[in-house]
Amino acid sequence: MPMHPIALHEALTAFDALWSPRIVSRVNDYDVRIAKVEGEHVWHVHDHTDEFFLVLDGELHIALREPSGERTVTLAKGSVFTVPKGTEHKPYAPTGAAILMLEPTGTLTVGDRHEEVPAHVDVTTGHRVDAEPQSP
Amino acid sequence: MPMHPIALHEALTAFDALWSPRIVSRVNDYDVRIAKVEGEHVWHVHDHTDEFFLVLDGELHIALREPSGERTVTLAKGSVFTVPKGTEHKPYAPTGAAILMLEPTGTLTVGDRHEEVPAHVDVTTGHRVDAEPQSP
Repeated sequence: MPMHPIALHEALTAFDALWSPRIVSRVNDYDVRIAKVEGEHVWHVHDHTDEFFLVLDGELHIALREPSGERTVTLAKGSVFTVPKGTEHKPYAPTGAAILMLEPTGTLTVGDRHEEVPAHVDVTTGHRVDAEPQSP
Repeated sequence: MPMHPIALHEALTAFDALWSPRIVSRVNDYDVRIAKVEGEHVWHVHDHTDEFFLVLDGELHIALREPSGERTVTLAKGSVFTVPKGTEHKPYAPTGAAILMLEPTGTLTVGDRHEEVPAHVDVTTGHRVDAEPQSP
């Protein structure tokens, strides 16, 4: 993993793909990922892990299907929210957003169960970030 | 844990204590903490866990004692870095900073081994955040 700090805004400029997370750091057996998002992700659920979101730029909505019904939380820039494991959810960002996520290494972007995945959603456990600074 | 998003800048306005982390979210058995910092923390080491830092505002320095010698990494606003477990380190911020940290629930601010702790450093596993929004 990186031995030097990573500037997130620089890491974000290094790729354009939407809904295609880049791994910027690792914490024990967890990955810290960043992604550019716009439009809709898919309904999916992580059966065995919570999923943490921090909005770096823009605005992210997360629709949640809970025992009490469906609701949506809205995260402005600088807001955080954790989707509990086992909760079906669908992130979406009509006007675009940059987000940071934390989840166990190997967690799939579409979870353990999901609806049909459209072409614009990357099914991945995260890509290496290309913006890693070189060692001095 | 919070069932609604937390705006970090609001959570930060809810307390003034330095080097005294507030828990803003939980991800499985990890805590997401925020802290205001200024001046020097203490040399300490977490024997069993990495420690992730994201600078929300200001600038954070982390001095590291590695097998190859001592060095300091500097994190500008919006930068991330993970201190590997077992690496003795000392965060400091001469001009102040607001930071987000991620580590296993129960991790002490001064690690498993540390130098003498001055009065301005809070020895804690993190406090509850006071800025949690009320349920609608």
